[in-house]
Amino acid sequence: MSILVVGSVALDSVETPFGKVDRVIGGSAVFFTAAASLLVPVRVVGVVGSDYPFEKLDFLTERGADLSGVEKAEGESFFWAGRYSHDLNSRDTLELRLGVFADFKPSLPEVFRDSRYVFLGNIDPALQLEVLDQIREPTAVICDTMNHWIEESREALVELLGRVDILMVNDAEARQLAGEHNLVQAARWIQERGPRFVVVKKGEHGAMLFGPDWMFSVPGYPLEVIFDPTGAGDAFAGGFVGHMASVDSLDPDDLKRAMVYGSVMGSFAVESFSVDRFHSLDEGQILHRIMEFKEMTTFEHELEPSGG
Amino acid sequence: MSILVVGSVALDSVETPFGKVDRVIGGSAVFFTAAASLLVPVRVVGVVGSDYPFEKLDFLTERGADLSGVEKAEGESFFWAGRYSHDLNSRDTLELRLGVFADFKPSLPEVFRDSRYVFLGNIDPALQLEVLDQIREPTAVICDTMNHWIEESREALVELLGRVDILMVNDAEARQLAGEHNLVQAARWIQERGPRFVVVKKGEHGAMLFGPDWMFSVPGYPLEVIFDPTGAGDAFAGGFVGHMASVDSLDPDDLKRAMVYGSVMGSFAVESFSVDRFHSLDEGQILHRIMEFKEMTTFEHELEPSGG
Repeated sequence: MSILVVGSVALDSVETPFGKVDRVIGGSAVFFTAAASLLVPVRVVGVVGSDYPFEKLDFLTERGADLSGVEKAEGESFFWAGRYSHDLNSRDTLELRLGVFADFKPSLPEVFRDSRYVFLGNIDPALQLEVLDQIREPTAVICDTMNHWIEESREALVELLGRVDILMVNDAEARQLAGEHNLVQAARWIQERGPRFVVVKKGEHGAMLFGPDWMFSVPGYPLEVIFDPTGAGDAFAGGFVGHMASVDSLDPDDLKRAMVYGSVMGSFAVESFSVDRFHSLDEGQILHRIMEFKEMTTFEHELEPSGG
Repeated sequence: MSILVVGSVALDSVETPFGKVDRVIGGSAVFFTAAASLLVPVRVVGVVGSDYPFEKLDFLTERGADLSGVEKAEGESFFWAGRYSHDLNSRDTLELRLGVFADFKPSLPEVFRDSRYVFLGNIDPALQLEVLDQIREPTAVICDTMNHWIEESREALVELLGRVDILMVNDAEARQLAGEHNLVQAARWIQERGPRFVVVKKGEHGAMLFGPDWMFSVPGYPLEVIFDPTGAGDAFAGGFVGHMASVDSLDPDDLKRAMVYGSVMGSFAVESFSVDRFHSLDEGQILHRIMEFKEMTTFEHELEPSGG
């Protein structure tokens, strides 16, 4: 089972309270793939400029990622520079240059068009639609977006929702999209426009999954040091979609497990700059953290009076 | 197994987006007792003025609460008037009059002094210490506080911490007390000053329990309408301490269940004004909601590769 991701393949300069890095590999497609390729082969669609250190993506290829959908264009790669506040609760964008991404027109290699699990990273909804048009018969389409597109491309975004199985956004985005502060009601608003499922990411507070008539909640992993929050959401998506595809199922029990895989991958992502943590990550470490999530959330209760 | 609570017995005027009420019963001891008395007998220590509609507390007495520790003083009862923002994320205090509470000196009836589970509601740490001095041999002391005491009475509060088994505060208070943004580190800072356990309440994001070398997380109950957030934290404490006392145990499994009882009681508290929801609440409804928490958080995972 192969999954397809479309998103940014970027260079990031990041400053956190713990240090700074310059022009390291990043972008939604890279974080997604770093996590998902640990679980399932990944096909990547994107664009880089002539300045991109493509060999830094070799570790993804070695894990079975197919980068033949990453176009190499003349010009500069997508570049983002940002600085996080001391409590990591906010970040300032210091510089943002779209470079070759400004003219990106995703064109899928023929062999990518039978992909069954599709993750549409946070790019222009018009491009997300163009990608979908090139997929023959997806089993599940999972989609991210952000405040910019909610404000500027609402019409295309709502059209897209009609073709999406799972919308995956953060709590502020869910509220903004639905125009509704209560998350339960916001999720229902979104579900009425297409997606059967809504995943709401809440950073340190974990994530929620809204199904048709049930919901699931997973806490944030209690890290003592959050080294660099960049990419956590995309790594979450990589773990989530990676697990779904690896078991080829959208059954509730599998989606719940997928939420935990997402949380695990997101928690690893923030332990280092860039995708560094994923270089050394192995299955044993992943399973260990899954079990930590289980211990952290499991309680037993019999259907009996508690006393009094 | 009986528990003792000391806290405010107040009159509240509350305005939320869903309505308003004038001079209804409230205060930390009342919300705590409304929840805890469903699980275990409760002894209440506090003070009211001559204007207090004491008969409105009859339903607590009928459930086995002993109000003989509530002093009736000449003067006005503690009064709070507040208004919540439309998204319930913030509230303005419109009026606050301490009344007879200003001269409150807790004096425990002799029969209260053998109490083994003690909840020190959010009052002056000096008064919390005075209450503790009157308890012979408590099994567990659970303590709440707030930003005001952290700022104005830090010395007494830190002294108190040395005599407390479980500190129960919200996330902002834990951070402020420890001077540390990271909650894991903040909890450890607090534990180093006495409490074996720290409970951090996070409102809609649920709550966390930090043990000596483990932690537990419970999500917020996903309510579509939060009618009135007043008292949720004290009802949480009532469910938490009520369950602990009813099973007479501080074992990790029992404390985890206590976290769920707390969350359940907190979620009921916000469904109505004042303690109204607790009038009709029965064991079946409590157990049903506990099971909803279980379904919302349970996932299965075998220690096997997930695919890929």
